[in-house]
Amino acid sequence: MNNKLLVLGTVAYDAIETPFGKTGKILGGCATYIGLAASHFNTECGLISIIGSDFEEEHLNLLKEKNLNLEGVEQLQGEKTFFWSGKYHNDLNTRTTLDTQLNVLTKFQPKVPENFKNSSVVLLGNLDPNIQLEVLNQMDQKPDLIVMDTMNFWIESYREKLDELIARVDVISINDEEARQLTQKHSLVEAAKDLQAMGPKYVVIKKGEHGALLFNGNNIFCAPGLPLEEVFDPTGAGDSFIGGFAAYLVQRKKINFEEMKTAVIVGSALASFTVQEFGTSALEKMTFVQLAQRIQAFKSLTEFEIELT
Amino acid sequence: MNNKLLVLGTVAYDAIETPFGKTGKILGGCATYIGLAASHFNTECGLISIIGSDFEEEHLNLLKEKNLNLEGVEQLQGEKTFFWSGKYHNDLNTRTTLDTQLNVLTKFQPKVPENFKNSSVVLLGNLDPNIQLEVLNQMDQKPDLIVMDTMNFWIESYREKLDELIARVDVISINDEEARQLTQKHSLVEAAKDLQAMGPKYVVIKKGEHGALLFNGNNIFCAPGLPLEEVFDPTGAGDSFIGGFAAYLVQRKKINFEEMKTAVIVGSALASFTVQEFGTSALEKMTFVQLAQRIQAFKSLTEFEIELT
Repeated sequence: MNNKLLVLGTVAYDAIETPFGKTGKILGGCATYIGLAASHFNTECGLISIIGSDFEEEHLNLLKEKNLNLEGVEQLQGEKTFFWSGKYHNDLNTRTTLDTQLNVLTKFQPKVPENFKNSSVVLLGNLDPNIQLEVLNQMDQKPDLIVMDTMNFWIESYREKLDELIARVDVISINDEEARQLTQKHSLVEAAKDLQAMGPKYVVIKKGEHGALLFNGNNIFCAPGLPLEEVFDPTGAGDSFIGGFAAYLVQRKKINFEEMKTAVIVGSALASFTVQEFGTSALEKMTFVQLAQRIQAFKSLTEFEIELT
Repeated sequence: MNNKLLVLGTVAYDAIETPFGKTGKILGGCATYIGLAASHFNTECGLISIIGSDFEEEHLNLLKEKNLNLEGVEQLQGEKTFFWSGKYHNDLNTRTTLDTQLNVLTKFQPKVPENFKNSSVVLLGNLDPNIQLEVLNQMDQKPDLIVMDTMNFWIESYREKLDELIARVDVISINDEEARQLTQKHSLVEAAKDLQAMGPKYVVIKKGEHGALLFNGNNIFCAPGLPLEEVFDPTGAGDSFIGGFAAYLVQRKKINFEEMKTAVIVGSALASFTVQEFGTSALEKMTFVQLAQRIQAFKSLTEFEIELT
């Protein structure tokens, strides 16, 4: 394994409203969150995305300062960056999309830079499955690990292509409702079995505040949700999760169930930072020491002694 | 601490419908589930309840065979046993009550048997808070631990009495929605803080398939939900949980956060058996070896290694 992590996804602007406040246009997009999460690990991380001429220098600099390789990020002159605006309801578990401006996304033709065509790990962030497949097709050799994310929109409207993609990946990361939607099984154990039968050996089911489950054959691992006093903005939690998950595995250069258990915890810890502030703020500021402390908190949270006598 | 566990609750008949089938009149009631769960541990467990003359000999014998002390279970001649009928919806997380016949419950005047007035642990199952308080008032001395359960009905309609009771207990066990309803806080961390401020040093929040959280001061423990292929009938899960929780602590004769962590796992393991069959069947048949294996499964489910380099 080399230490290259290739990430496909959006680099975008968001405007977010939660019960705690409202932002103007802020940096967002799944590749942004994934890249920032990955930047805390020893990887050579390259993003594939597309932005418009309105994309600000300071945001490009931020990504560069985090040692993210932007060769694969095309900037289209005279076009605008993808924009999403949404409002979270009181329980923060549901949200309403207020505005979606695809802008440059409609012209997105991903190009994998030469230097990343042999990446050990490819992470396909939530996007059109056609684009996700296109990136896989450009690789010189089969990556050691392909990880994918998706969402309800693609499940509903792009099912055939999505199935084609799912058959080619090693890890699928989706939330509980999407797993049920994809498989028509209510039990997550059964849903995970069906998903494995579709292709991926590893299935990660995200349950928001309730944590995440990792399935591999008959093995199951359960990462708890860290009980937080305040969740401020859930945007990017799933992307931070999967970014930390993949980057940890690249750093470890080992791929098996035991390593993935820790990777799920690492991803959960990163997501727990992300939700504590608006947008990417917490993820940017977070130090590796803080991350290590939080991972320890996850460990303490579930440890117990068995003494039945 | 002595090994006496005093349990207040209903001994009843249920009729249950789930997506997997339908029962006739079967044995139910929270004291029944609690008692059967406790019967797997080394305790002297006495029930306080009321039944009618229709309560069948075979069910009385079942409870006696499980070494449950029934001195405190009054049988009213010419009256009928409390009856509840409900139907679970497809996701098994919600249910509709089809019928409630209070019957003998309207005449319930709990009497704590002399021999149980010095019980170390008192478990007040879900019932009218006036009756729960009455049992506490009959104790000769302050128990080492008082555990209570309640439900939305009492929160809505008996709030003042409920608050009086909550102020007198050491552990409150409720589900996530009830915790939010009681405290008007969405964050479970904040809800648990508010509940502790109302009296109980320990707060257990049950999250159904997502497991349970234990709070004590700034300490938090998270018990995972065991991912089950099939949940057959959720009736009695919370009662089995709290019964196992309390009985484990009585057996250990130690009360502190560390012991309670394991107690929460023991309770979760018992609940995971209960939901796999209709009514009390699984709880009756379960062996201690099976229980020990399942507790080990809970441990494996959350164990991981931290290697950040």
